[in-house]
Amino acid sequence: MTATEIGHVENDFSEASPPDAIAAAESRVVLEPKFSTGLRGLVTGQKLLVVFHFHLSTGYELLQHPRGDSSRPRRGVFALRSPRRPNPIGVTEVELVEMEGNVLTVRGLDALDGTPILDIKPA
Amino acid sequence: MTATEIGHVENDFSEASPPDAIAAAESRVVLEPKFSTGLRGLVTGQKLLVVFHFHLSTGYELLQHPRGDSSRPRRGVFALRSPRRPNPIGVTEVELVEMEGNVLTVRGLDALDGTPILDIKPA
Repeated sequence: MTATEIGHVENDFSEASPPDAIAAAESRVVLEPKFSTGLRGLVTGQKLLVVFHFHLSTGYELLQHPRGDSSRPRRGVFALRSPRRPNPIGVTEVELVEMEGNVLTVRGLDALDGTPILDIKPA
Repeated sequence: MTATEIGHVENDFSEASPPDAIAAAESRVVLEPKFSTGLRGLVTGQKLLVVFHFHLSTGYELLQHPRGDSSRPRRGVFALRSPRRPNPIGVTEVELVEMEGNVLTVRGLDALDGTPILDIKPA
């Protein structure tokens, strides 16, 4: 299947950063304006799943060290949240902090600045 | 981006069925054998996110009646879990009941028999 970008992430994390540090900060999910109507009914404080493309990820291995830490034994990619997976799709549960027009401010998203958004769903 | 099938769902729900009825039953997630190694480290009882393709879905509307029930007011597609979305990607949290080789038995999956699987992650 083909999935197309419906928006993108904006935050202060423009390089590979620890996922925990990104998730601790707020991010903006900026939808393409033509999709704004699709946000109707979302409420502040709600938990959402944000589905995104790990657009900087290339290739994968079936066994990987957790967080690339070679002191930890390798585990299967489906037991990890590594971006290096057969389909480079990320899914993170976030809290909706604020919504204004086509821009959602969320807490808990561990995606880099510029990450393409594929979907948003109620968690 | 392009996402490719890494496996498929097997259960007794081969037509459009109420999601609740499907989720109440157990389903099998059958990975392509070449991906089996990627399951290493998963444990029975664990919560997983299953990412799948709503392969029977065609098109979408930004505002939809919840569950197609026209007695309920329309809401934005991103406030719904409808399969008719800009990118027809489903994400459901399931419980891993059993794992044998390339076959996971899970509880809580609301996907029809034959649904293509795109990813599995720890919840």
